[in-house]
Amino acid sequence: MQKLIFTNEVAGALASLVAEMAPTGLFMLADSNTRPIAEEINTFGAKIITIPAGDDNKNLETIASVWKELSTGGATRRSLLINVGGGMVTDLGGFAAACFKRGIRFINVATSLLGAVDAAVGGKTGINFLHFKNEIGAFAPADAVIISTRFFKTLPAAELRSGFAEMLKHGLISSDAAYRRLLAFDPCESNLDDLLPLLEENVNVKRQIVEIDPKETGIRKALNLGHTAGHALESFALEHNSPVPHGFAVAHGLLIEMILSHILLGFPSAELHSMAMILREAYLPMPAIGCNDYDALLELMSHDKKNSSRNNINFTLLRAPGEPVIDSTADSDTIRTALDIYRDLLGL
Amino acid sequence: MQKLIFTNEVAGALASLVAEMAPTGLFMLADSNTRPIAEEINTFGAKIITIPAGDDNKNLETIASVWKELSTGGATRRSLLINVGGGMVTDLGGFAAACFKRGIRFINVATSLLGAVDAAVGGKTGINFLHFKNEIGAFAPADAVIISTRFFKTLPAAELRSGFAEMLKHGLISSDAAYRRLLAFDPCESNLDDLLPLLEENVNVKRQIVEIDPKETGIRKALNLGHTAGHALESFALEHNSPVPHGFAVAHGLLIEMILSHILLGFPSAELHSMAMILREAYLPMPAIGCNDYDALLELMSHDKKNSSRNNINFTLLRAPGEPVIDSTADSDTIRTALDIYRDLLGL
Repeated sequence: MQKLIFTNEVAGALASLVAEMAPTGLFMLADSNTRPIAEEINTFGAKIITIPAGDDNKNLETIASVWKELSTGGATRRSLLINVGGGMVTDLGGFAAACFKRGIRFINVATSLLGAVDAAVGGKTGINFLHFKNEIGAFAPADAVIISTRFFKTLPAAELRSGFAEMLKHGLISSDAAYRRLLAFDPCESNLDDLLPLLEENVNVKRQIVEIDPKETGIRKALNLGHTAGHALESFALEHNSPVPHGFAVAHGLLIEMILSHILLGFPSAELHSMAMILREAYLPMPAIGCNDYDALLELMSHDKKNSSRNNINFTLLRAPGEPVIDSTADSDTIRTALDIYRDLLGL
Repeated sequence: MQKLIFTNEVAGALASLVAEMAPTGLFMLADSNTRPIAEEINTFGAKIITIPAGDDNKNLETIASVWKELSTGGATRRSLLINVGGGMVTDLGGFAAACFKRGIRFINVATSLLGAVDAAVGGKTGINFLHFKNEIGAFAPADAVIISTRFFKTLPAAELRSGFAEMLKHGLISSDAAYRRLLAFDPCESNLDDLLPLLEENVNVKRQIVEIDPKETGIRKALNLGHTAGHALESFALEHNSPVPHGFAVAHGLLIEMILSHILLGFPSAELHSMAMILREAYLPMPAIGCNDYDALLELMSHDKKNSSRNNINFTLLRAPGEPVIDSTADSDTIRTALDIYRDLLGL
């Protein structure tokens, strides 16, 4: 079982973990942004490998440079790699560790809210290849993950909100009460120390689901809530040269899929209005969508890994907060209707 | 559980497997030598990807070219890759499949005896990196392996003998009776149809061990019999510009480790003499070794993945045929004595 540690005493927690795991070689991976954090918490003389920041660098060339540093640095099967960063670093570093000598141990120290709540936990690692995201990778859970809010203080508000959208998703699939606690919290206005216990509850939702279904053959699909529509919006924005943060697209995807849930499964309409209000307050701008864009969006939704046809698109939907229904399908007319309602609710 | 199929009706067996697995995209991987075999057994219109033959090409560039063919050829999570070749193709192709979209299904069709008895079964996949063998890889068992002797007819005698050395190793760790059946068989003089049932018994030895201990934390180390000394001889030969087939080095490694077993565990001396006879008849030439080379050989043995010190080297040894003892250690004086006896037995 993956060890999750929620603490703001990161250096101490990490040093204890390292002592407990007793590796024969110690390596840290950071990107150009998180290198200062890696240096700060490296109280045990690990060799720090630095890679260039940014999703464009989550590729084969970068991972080969990490393997080279490990090989020439004398890493053995009993060595440990500590990934310090957001999703780019933990995805690439986790995959690097999973393949080095057919697998060495690794720890993730999440430095962004999105990374903490999404990439660092759950074992999906990988790199982009050609123009495909996460095309090459492995299911390889970190031996331990350290989650702290103390690195979030310097994050831009948009990044905090982006990560918080994934928290809303976990709240929605776990329970009505958990979802209400999140609705009452504003990540940009509140004390970040108050975020830590919420984050602990929230990340454990993901952990529990992943433990039951690590390779996404069943219930893990619940974690895709908001993502079929969200990925389509994200790609649409990118194609129109106005990229949006991943979590913004997910937040809007959540609303679209809550609308589908309302149409198909009777999900309560009051929830649509409160989510729309959150989006208007905290998750704009998004590219304007008109009726003429529906075909393009449907095409993008059908490209999602889980789908094979445009006419029946697979979603995770909700009967109510805390009641996800995986493998729900919607036909294109229903999705068009949902997009109409979505634009209406947001006044787009 | 990995499905192992022993048959000389390869095309039919493969077509049945493919029908049963019902993939949504079909790809085959072959090298420049095995491409004609791939074409012959491809009765279902798979796209054949061809890579250059030879261990020098078992690298990151080649695997990237395979991923590119899969991506641009429209492979999905439900596609199937069929690796047709020796260990180079199944190692690289298995690793390519293990990482493509975090893992697609794959089948190995072994075309060499060494590949059939060693690489194709057991889930160790990977590529060479820098000058390290199998430095980057994954534990990923093929969904099915097809083993046939019909492709062996065109193999050079040295390659048949090389593969047969790994069979002798499996015989030695499994039972006295299995070992005797192998001693009574000459792969270069016998009808290859008679080899198929022996191969089935033999490969199942490996399969059973791997199923108990897939990641080599315990009993799988028994499969290293002959390999600590064998790898040292193989590297030694390479360093002296007279490379030997892997199985030749393993055969000589078996004798050296049988001698160590005799000294340390009372392994019967009669077995040393019969193995020495086999080596003199079928596993020469090997580079001559003198007392001055012992230090270099000890150094090479201590570099084995499992070792950390030159003075106490870890081996898998034998109390008797069928009675392996993993994690046996020998000090350098004992190893020097064993090398003296080895040279004596072979008249080197």
